[in-house]
Amino acid sequence: MLAVTILGNNSAVPAFDRHPTSQVVTIDGHLFLVDCGEGTQIQMIRYKIRRSKISHVFISHLHGDHYFGLVGLINSFGLLNHLQDLHVYAPSPLHEIIEWQLKVASTTLPYKLFFHTISKEELLVDEDKFSVKCFPTNHRIECYGFSFHEKKSRRKLLVEKAREYNIPIEFYDRLKNGENYMQPDGSVVKYEWVTEDTPPGKMYAFCADTKYDESIIPHIQDADLIYHETTYLDALQERAADRFHTTSKQAALIAKKANVKKLLIGHFSSKYDTLEEFEQEAREVFLNTELALEGVTYKI
Amino acid sequence: MLAVTILGNNSAVPAFDRHPTSQVVTIDGHLFLVDCGEGTQIQMIRYKIRRSKISHVFISHLHGDHYFGLVGLINSFGLLNHLQDLHVYAPSPLHEIIEWQLKVASTTLPYKLFFHTISKEELLVDEDKFSVKCFPTNHRIECYGFSFHEKKSRRKLLVEKAREYNIPIEFYDRLKNGENYMQPDGSVVKYEWVTEDTPPGKMYAFCADTKYDESIIPHIQDADLIYHETTYLDALQERAADRFHTTSKQAALIAKKANVKKLLIGHFSSKYDTLEEFEQEAREVFLNTELALEGVTYKI
Repeated sequence: MLAVTILGNNSAVPAFDRHPTSQVVTIDGHLFLVDCGEGTQIQMIRYKIRRSKISHVFISHLHGDHYFGLVGLINSFGLLNHLQDLHVYAPSPLHEIIEWQLKVASTTLPYKLFFHTISKEELLVDEDKFSVKCFPTNHRIECYGFSFHEKKSRRKLLVEKAREYNIPIEFYDRLKNGENYMQPDGSVVKYEWVTEDTPPGKMYAFCADTKYDESIIPHIQDADLIYHETTYLDALQERAADRFHTTSKQAALIAKKANVKKLLIGHFSSKYDTLEEFEQEAREVFLNTELALEGVTYKI
Repeated sequence: MLAVTILGNNSAVPAFDRHPTSQVVTIDGHLFLVDCGEGTQIQMIRYKIRRSKISHVFISHLHGDHYFGLVGLINSFGLLNHLQDLHVYAPSPLHEIIEWQLKVASTTLPYKLFFHTISKEELLVDEDKFSVKCFPTNHRIECYGFSFHEKKSRRKLLVEKAREYNIPIEFYDRLKNGENYMQPDGSVVKYEWVTEDTPPGKMYAFCADTKYDESIIPHIQDADLIYHETTYLDALQERAADRFHTTSKQAALIAKKANVKKLLIGHFSSKYDTLEEFEQEAREVFLNTELALEGVTYKI
């Protein structure tokens, strides 16, 4: 299962019970944290996220609303006796900021903290069943989006058919891998006859903070779901550009051009106390748009 | 008026909807923030604290649960167009931590931020009507408590009496300051005859994180109210000492020995989901004890 749970959907300043950016991506039973604004650990408690399952944190950029909750979380993991390794992927200055804050508090963590600098488009995690990549976005400071890719699983065995051909059970795995079976009489059973193709792996992309920029399209092309920021409504297009942010309609246009299946919008400016208009405006351009609401899990 | 509003009453890890340490002291119309754990700005919104009135922040020590919310608050003040100066008093390493976090975000604040290093017992603020001092406490790392002192106001004029002596209005101020008035016939009207003494100024002390240590008593002696940490119940006295924290009964003993009028207890360990026992145990030693509850303002 691939899913994303929103912990914070607001931009810079917390307001209207909306919190700074953070979300949890679940893939193949792993929990990955994407951005960690102030109060993320409190949101995790509120929404019953199993903190102990988090092994990787991805930080898009070093504006505070995307990482001020991280050192608190790292600290709490220590106090809560989290023992598994924790991997943090972020632009380089964050490493020293974390180390320093731990040092002045004389904190020794009971687990291993690995810091991985991100500085360009890159494959960050490559596991049997999924991978995670980062890609640059166009923001006021160095900034990255993250894409989560389920790998296509092996072909599915059609057990009844395999039995008809009397193929021994020990060979089933090789059939799934695409090997043909040779009968004792020399005749060949093609793997396609006794297995079927599986659907392609799902893909989710978090597009971070960015101004409208079509250069991210290749990184999110055909995704099942993307989260794109929409800090402002259409009327504030100029302000959005000035501040390296995106409007509702622009986010929808990116979704449309990238041929994604569904668009989640978030990172709303604290100017707006209600959000309906964001959804309305975006849907004029791309119908399958939803507001990213805190505490909600969007399954793919 | 002197008052304190509790924003966070929990120790290190947030739990049970209790938050890390932060409180707002109101004195002579000024709002002073004492400690600023993660999520403080969100608590301020929740409890309708007028953020724009905050001009001074005092940070007791550099364990994260006492300051991880500060850089977020500094940042938000900028975005909310806070224009007045902001003074931060804290142990020295915090200065560079803040500067660095602003730098990596390319943030320029629209107001002046003054950092004041605290490193010993000291008078930090001295205004006409009040003063603020800091004093060292006994914790695992460098740590300070803060005391807030209303100054005794000038003598109060008894207008009727002053009129009886035909003292000109222009001289009233000097009477209040303790000067005698000489009548045209050379006879003296003593200031005591036409003014009365005022009550002493109130005092509040925040005793920060500390193990049981009577050396703080001179700094909090006879206070109207103190806030003392009680991380653990009496049964965990040994753990409290190991971790440089205090138990319920020990905090009450300090209050008793310092002859304070009232004790507020807080900084509860996340081990405890309910707090009644803290109050019960402390009251066995010092009756006028209250739990410091989040969102509650304690007037003095």
